[in-house]
Amino acid sequence: MSVPAEALTALGEILGDRLSRSKSDLDLHGQSETWFPAAPPDAVAYPRTTDEVAAIVRLCAAHGCPMVGWGVGTSLEGHALAVRGGICVDFSRMNRVLAVHPEDMDVVVQPGVTREDLNADLRATGLFFPVDPGANATLGGMASTRASGTTAVRYGTMRDNVLGLQVVLADGRVIRTGTRARKSAAGYDLTGLFVGAEGTLGLITELTLKLYGQPEAISAAVCAFDAIGPAVDTVIQTIQMGIPMARIEFVDAATAAAVNAYAGARFPEKPHLLVEFHGSPSGVAEQAEAFGEIVADNSGAGFEWSSRPEERTALWTMRHNAYYACLAARPGATALVTDLCVPISRLAEAVEETRADIAASYIPGPILGHVGDGNFHAILLVDPRNPVELAEAKRLSHRMVERALRLGGTVTGEHGIGMGKLGYMEAEHGEAWDVMGQIKRALDPQGLMNPGKLVRGD
Amino acid sequence: MSVPAEALTALGEILGDRLSRSKSDLDLHGQSETWFPAAPPDAVAYPRTTDEVAAIVRLCAAHGCPMVGWGVGTSLEGHALAVRGGICVDFSRMNRVLAVHPEDMDVVVQPGVTREDLNADLRATGLFFPVDPGANATLGGMASTRASGTTAVRYGTMRDNVLGLQVVLADGRVIRTGTRARKSAAGYDLTGLFVGAEGTLGLITELTLKLYGQPEAISAAVCAFDAIGPAVDTVIQTIQMGIPMARIEFVDAATAAAVNAYAGARFPEKPHLLVEFHGSPSGVAEQAEAFGEIVADNSGAGFEWSSRPEERTALWTMRHNAYYACLAARPGATALVTDLCVPISRLAEAVEETRADIAASYIPGPILGHVGDGNFHAILLVDPRNPVELAEAKRLSHRMVERALRLGGTVTGEHGIGMGKLGYMEAEHGEAWDVMGQIKRALDPQGLMNPGKLVRGD
Repeated sequence: MSVPAEALTALGEILGDRLSRSKSDLDLHGQSETWFPAAPPDAVAYPRTTDEVAAIVRLCAAHGCPMVGWGVGTSLEGHALAVRGGICVDFSRMNRVLAVHPEDMDVVVQPGVTREDLNADLRATGLFFPVDPGANATLGGMASTRASGTTAVRYGTMRDNVLGLQVVLADGRVIRTGTRARKSAAGYDLTGLFVGAEGTLGLITELTLKLYGQPEAISAAVCAFDAIGPAVDTVIQTIQMGIPMARIEFVDAATAAAVNAYAGARFPEKPHLLVEFHGSPSGVAEQAEAFGEIVADNSGAGFEWSSRPEERTALWTMRHNAYYACLAARPGATALVTDLCVPISRLAEAVEETRADIAASYIPGPILGHVGDGNFHAILLVDPRNPVELAEAKRLSHRMVERALRLGGTVTGEHGIGMGKLGYMEAEHGEAWDVMGQIKRALDPQGLMNPGKLVRGD
Repeated sequence: MSVPAEALTALGEILGDRLSRSKSDLDLHGQSETWFPAAPPDAVAYPRTTDEVAAIVRLCAAHGCPMVGWGVGTSLEGHALAVRGGICVDFSRMNRVLAVHPEDMDVVVQPGVTREDLNADLRATGLFFPVDPGANATLGGMASTRASGTTAVRYGTMRDNVLGLQVVLADGRVIRTGTRARKSAAGYDLTGLFVGAEGTLGLITELTLKLYGQPEAISAAVCAFDAIGPAVDTVIQTIQMGIPMARIEFVDAATAAAVNAYAGARFPEKPHLLVEFHGSPSGVAEQAEAFGEIVADNSGAGFEWSSRPEERTALWTMRHNAYYACLAARPGATALVTDLCVPISRLAEAVEETRADIAASYIPGPILGHVGDGNFHAILLVDPRNPVELAEAKRLSHRMVERALRLGGTVTGEHGIGMGKLGYMEAEHGEAWDVMGQIKRALDPQGLMNPGKLVRGD
């Protein structure tokens, strides 16, 4: 219990019944989507305004209570686990779209808005927010973990799509970073510092995000390869040709098999590429055809493309069903999802070595990824009640992480550090990790913002 | 004199004749391209390696000497002026391209490589580095000032195009930020923190940069408008349609007149847009034609486009000659170049108010800008020996800065803070400026890295 009774009393005075200590609430906010042990907070706060967040933070700072932000809990690395107890700040009541600026193609939102809700809200404007990590995460959570997903190859990650933030700092000060101008050379990039900081430097209470015009036309294509090498070569050549892919996804033979079983499909059980182009009708046709020529040069088979919505959807069946098909391949299993990102020239070898490692193990582990970024995931399917299996999955994951570093990559392309990758920060960053610690101590000298995460043993 | 004799002796032992105290060297490194008073360093160091930079920094740290990095001196805001004396670290001998990775489309360079030298080096690879601030600046300088220029609307700024850095910190530690992976969610974005830090947190000794395929085809177009409003509307509609402009430049009637006088051209003396598209031959034709339709909808006149190199060059004559044509419009003048960036919906009013301000003054001030980003410059032409004129130019500049902030923009889109914008940091950032100061003190507690710049009175 790291929250003194007087702090709870004071928080209750501010929040009323929006401060919860019910067991179900604590349990819900102490879980993660994957295998990490539960770590419930001492209380859950549901602020409605930035002023309330600042008041919560000032009270916690005065009483030395840890504070952990909470979106909808879709992190795969246990970011929001209250490993030192304290107050969980749940942003679900701060879920308003505050302003849409169609001419400037930006939007101002509260952190609890989910990406699907935002896009539903934007539909009539002809604009959309492209970052798509799969889960219907909140935008505050996506910013805090520097999320990306299938569209990053064209539209970038959260790093590229947050124009500015409002942040409550560890001492309760409220700052704004960035402006609504598209670029600036005015001082340190604080927006970029808070994006990906995983709530360790402050709590995000407002975000200004870039929007894009809904594409006039979309084409999609699918093709199969006998091996990962020519699939990756196809992607490299497509990028070098400057053909602007909106998405380019890889799924391996095991994933194709899982989708066949799950969705009654009949894909060849081989590595596949699935690609999508956004643009004008003639542009997306030309791009799909140019991609098809590169596929043929690399001995890809079964190339099909379409810009008709129902046919596009059919072509992407595999990707849309992939994650749940993989989970269904082993009923009752929990997934330990790995998340490497390497220079694309090393991607084929990273996937092949991982494939061989998994084949030599007894854990099922389909592989899929955002191949245009060099980012891929193995979905290691384990019985969560079996510590031997979990240990084996961690061993495979550890070897993948070492492989990523050896090949010049990063231990996490998009899922973040959280609990799962903290042990690799020194290996990836060396003394630069100490610099992160210096920044942390400067902005959060008491170490109360999401403690136990991201920096060295604070 | 802020460098003790024993420090100079020790530096001389490391660098030999690559430590210079000649008057011509000190004068050269104490000047800027514009109106700021000279501020020479006490000595100029010409390191060849990162180890030498680290040795210089350790010596300076031990003796409390200021350190200021130097590229080629093309800053327009006096970034590299040694306002507290100390050692100027000139990177001209660290000018090697260290590694080109064509498959990964990245390159590793030393900070003294200029962007033109890099692109000359890359020519045979089919790749290029797109960020183009006009001047042939060094890549270390461009990173330090978060430079951008004409191509940012398509390819982004230095913020978007630096994958990783090697940095010598204020205590001599050498760190690496980022990896060669295209994205990462592994901890604070230190790369983004050092890009735009103007040498106040460390000295950049190596950069890993993104490259792009040289476009298969380029088309260019030009058109004139009766007013800035419809020109900006044309740009907004083009962006909303998702037509991917590689460059979109605005020049005002005064600039068109200056180009006519300078280059013997006969452009209508009206606001113009100049645009360039990069893509496939049919893609750039389609894009130019779609742009032409939007121009017609906005009553633009004289629309012409071409994808033939010599015709493209002719169409862009105005932009290529603009800066020197403006300088030539007042022989002997120095330019005070302003640098606002606002949300594009406010751009027309920002330009029109600025135009009216300048018209009511006696200082000539043609306006041009990177209109796709909402970024524009007035080139205020003053007699550098006339303090009354300089004061008038500063008054106009001050009103422009206030206008940018009032319209939700930033005091500098791409030129940086340096000496010229330091007085506006509080107005733009409020308490976030104090956060910058906290980071500065954490990483440079003695305040020796480019002191007197960017943060509050260190």
